[in-house]
Amino acid sequence: MSFRAISLVKIHKTVLRLHNMNRVLTKTITTSACCKIKKEVAKLLALKAQLAPEDAAPQKFTLKTPKGTRDYTPQQMTIRNEVLQKIITVFKRHGAECIDTPVFELKEVLTGKYGEDSKLIYDLKDQGGEILSLRYDLTVPLARYLAMSKINTLKRYHIAKVYRRDNPAMTRGRYREFYQCDFDIAGQYDPMVPDAECLRVVSEILDTLDIGRYVLKVNHRRLLDGMFEACGVPADNFRATCSTVDKLDKLSWEEVRTEMINEKGVTPEAADKIGEYVRLNGGTELADKLLKDEKLSKTKAAVEGLEGIKLLLHYCELFGIKDKILFDLSLARGLDYYTGVIYEAVLTQPFKVGNEDQTVGSIAGGGRYDNLVGMFDSKNKQVPCVGVSIGVERVFSVLEARAAAAARRVRGADVDVYVASAQKNFLDERMKICAELWSAGIKAEQSYKKNPKMLTQLQHCEEAGIPLAVVLGDDELQRGVVTLRDVAARRESEVPRHALVDELQARIAALNTTLNGNK
Amino acid sequence: MSFRAISLVKIHKTVLRLHNMNRVLTKTITTSACCKIKKEVAKLLALKAQLAPEDAAPQKFTLKTPKGTRDYTPQQMTIRNEVLQKIITVFKRHGAECIDTPVFELKEVLTGKYGEDSKLIYDLKDQGGEILSLRYDLTVPLARYLAMSKINTLKRYHIAKVYRRDNPAMTRGRYREFYQCDFDIAGQYDPMVPDAECLRVVSEILDTLDIGRYVLKVNHRRLLDGMFEACGVPADNFRATCSTVDKLDKLSWEEVRTEMINEKGVTPEAADKIGEYVRLNGGTELADKLLKDEKLSKTKAAVEGLEGIKLLLHYCELFGIKDKILFDLSLARGLDYYTGVIYEAVLTQPFKVGNEDQTVGSIAGGGRYDNLVGMFDSKNKQVPCVGVSIGVERVFSVLEARAAAAARRVRGADVDVYVASAQKNFLDERMKICAELWSAGIKAEQSYKKNPKMLTQLQHCEEAGIPLAVVLGDDELQRGVVTLRDVAARRESEVPRHALVDELQARIAALNTTLNGNK
Repeated sequence: MSFRAISLVKIHKTVLRLHNMNRVLTKTITTSACCKIKKEVAKLLALKAQLAPEDAAPQKFTLKTPKGTRDYTPQQMTIRNEVLQKIITVFKRHGAECIDTPVFELKEVLTGKYGEDSKLIYDLKDQGGEILSLRYDLTVPLARYLAMSKINTLKRYHIAKVYRRDNPAMTRGRYREFYQCDFDIAGQYDPMVPDAECLRVVSEILDTLDIGRYVLKVNHRRLLDGMFEACGVPADNFRATCSTVDKLDKLSWEEVRTEMINEKGVTPEAADKIGEYVRLNGGTELADKLLKDEKLSKTKAAVEGLEGIKLLLHYCELFGIKDKILFDLSLARGLDYYTGVIYEAVLTQPFKVGNEDQTVGSIAGGGRYDNLVGMFDSKNKQVPCVGVSIGVERVFSVLEARAAAAARRVRGADVDVYVASAQKNFLDERMKICAELWSAGIKAEQSYKKNPKMLTQLQHCEEAGIPLAVVLGDDELQRGVVTLRDVAARRESEVPRHALVDELQARIAALNTTLNGNK
Repeated sequence: MSFRAISLVKIHKTVLRLHNMNRVLTKTITTSACCKIKKEVAKLLALKAQLAPEDAAPQKFTLKTPKGTRDYTPQQMTIRNEVLQKIITVFKRHGAECIDTPVFELKEVLTGKYGEDSKLIYDLKDQGGEILSLRYDLTVPLARYLAMSKINTLKRYHIAKVYRRDNPAMTRGRYREFYQCDFDIAGQYDPMVPDAECLRVVSEILDTLDIGRYVLKVNHRRLLDGMFEACGVPADNFRATCSTVDKLDKLSWEEVRTEMINEKGVTPEAADKIGEYVRLNGGTELADKLLKDEKLSKTKAAVEGLEGIKLLLHYCELFGIKDKILFDLSLARGLDYYTGVIYEAVLTQPFKVGNEDQTVGSIAGGGRYDNLVGMFDSKNKQVPCVGVSIGVERVFSVLEARAAAAARRVRGADVDVYVASAQKNFLDERMKICAELWSAGIKAEQSYKKNPKMLTQLQHCEEAGIPLAVVLGDDELQRGVVTLRDVAARRESEVPRHALVDELQARIAALNTTLNGNK
């Protein structure tokens, strides 16, 4: 116990004693003595209050994780690690390098990057040092990294947690602390070549995760700007109008129209014209049609955006993913920093949670941001970037729900061999065998009790899904053998002690072949 | 540009205009008019100051990461990921499950757990919610997790970043944000069985990382308590004296003695007696000798500690690691919460940074903490725990220094095939081939330029260590072949276009065999 804790206990005891004395004495002694005691009690109570916040045990507060956050259990981590491993495999297939940045940045780094959402940034307390904030995404830290390291080209992935003081909707996979998996290509290149590869990367990831049908929506910020211009929205209102259009996936057109007119100062006529455009979606033929559109064809930005979309769709065809792409004029994306193509992957198949169908919606998003790195450079030197972020928390939700629905048991650990004994006083022998198996690279464990019950040991094997058990006994050891148990089949056979490692390795190899064959 | 940014620009222009007007007018007009203008200027400047912090571009602040933190470059991440993968392999070999917890906890969770070091905790700003702090280690979050989930047994590993507002010594691998790799066994078991396995885990990890000779120091908090008692230190001074002994790896005995006497209220006689004990180290024979020591043999705690050490050493022998263990009475560990065995792994071999020999010292540490979980339980229900934490940042430092010393190039990405073209207008063809290779699971990339120079493409292959290049040309494609280039050997051969994927897969398999053979 610490010094403070000991002092606290002492003071507490003295307080109690004085309280009791007080109660007894008040009836018999003079008021002045009584007052004196009361004063002493008060002093000690004050002293106790001073000490208490530092070292109060047992704890009185509600035991919980902070609002909007959660622990990951071993079963959740198994799913999570499998998902991340598959995603990393795709990133590496495309030659991406991995970087990492601190979880917090100087607050100034994040300032002025997120528009309306800046209020959701977590700040750290000023403890007599720099003013820091937790990262809000992985894109701004990448831009800061590129500017700081004077790097002009980089293809990188970054998997890490980001922080947003949002109102969490945890049942739908929305948290205040959540993983992002980002893939970005930085560098001055020819139009739409890296942009198309980002879409190919998303498509490979969603295919390998096998989480159902999806569509990759694309649009272009230049086209949106041109569209707003053509509809008569003033230039300094483009971004605000854009962030209202972005709400079309949650609100009806009527609601979005009302917000545009009442909050963003768009005229009803302009809003109605926008309304006609944003309900359009299609492929190259739509882009061709819009290039002939009376209003858009006269707007430089719109023409640039439409030409960009056409080139992107051509490259997507070469990459073999054209059937998954939808050119959608209602796609706007919330963030301020996009300057070119924007994309969003949407799952089109609902998944079951219990008996309810749930839609996941957007599962990846991104776009081109050519001016962000320059914001960090003293000479405003630009490094054009394009990237995509995979919403892995939603992937986890879908796969957890699916495992639950299929009543599939997810193993937290993947031990292959359990070393058991049926008799007492076999701890030393079990330990020696464990050491031998570990040295041979075999995943093995045993009971930490000296004399565990045989039934408990076998039950553990069955519950944890451990396929093999080595069972030790006096008689067998004297004959130079051990018993090898196939846990699932509950079948036992004897193996010479000296051949144990070889036999186990052969059995494990056979099990893995069967497992992979069944996948 | 956002609304704020536009407003700022407008205000700025108006300020300039008014300033100029002011300058011109002051000579010609009345003082009152001049005053009015000055007031207007002041108002606008105030307005500008209000807006400026939200949206100042370009940025004026120093571009850096927060004090004591750093970015990891792709080369550093390659080393880091290799190290973590090896460590995870060992953890899993011992049947550990993986969990994760939020990066921050309710501040109350951390309060009263770290003794003197509590001042190093990073607090978050109160933004109208809960009072939060960044995690200081992974042990307290584990204890909170166990208590909250009502889990009585768990063998888990956890790899994550922790945060300490320490004075960073970054050249020696000490940061304010750093990774910890923890392995812990929770549960009511027989003495020293899980404790010995933690040592075996550390030993397997240090062996597999191959970072030089090491020793695993062990001691026991009960023995330290008994020793202090036997030397005449009052019980409520044990923890304070213990944290002074802990400084013996940095300070001389004389300095530690002075601190004990001047700051911790230990008498000079007691300090000298402690001094005699803490210079002892050895094996089982030392434990046997101390069990016969006049003073210690009469102290219950000391006898308990010594019996514990003897049992631990016996189990370490069964686990085949006895030659690496040193029973060392000077080992104390700083943290308050240890209650039983404590350990620390120390590298005994210096490593080179440039021409200088550098010592790393402690590279892993841990111990038993039986009372921590109970601090979170309203009924004070205990879950005994023992664990160890690997100081991976120091491992990274050692391996980075070694790679630098050997002038070994660390690859950030591990692309196998580069798709190049010697002629113009081959982008479409390159894209089709890339898509084909990716679909076959081959790690491939190409230039993002439409018409890159051949030399630039080949240079990139050599610099990035990409072993194979597919070179496309008109003539070859018409003959139904492509050129395959062995980058290192600068040797080229022709392959039928339709057999390209098969040929590449065979070549990559051969390369990997050679690589693994050379390891």
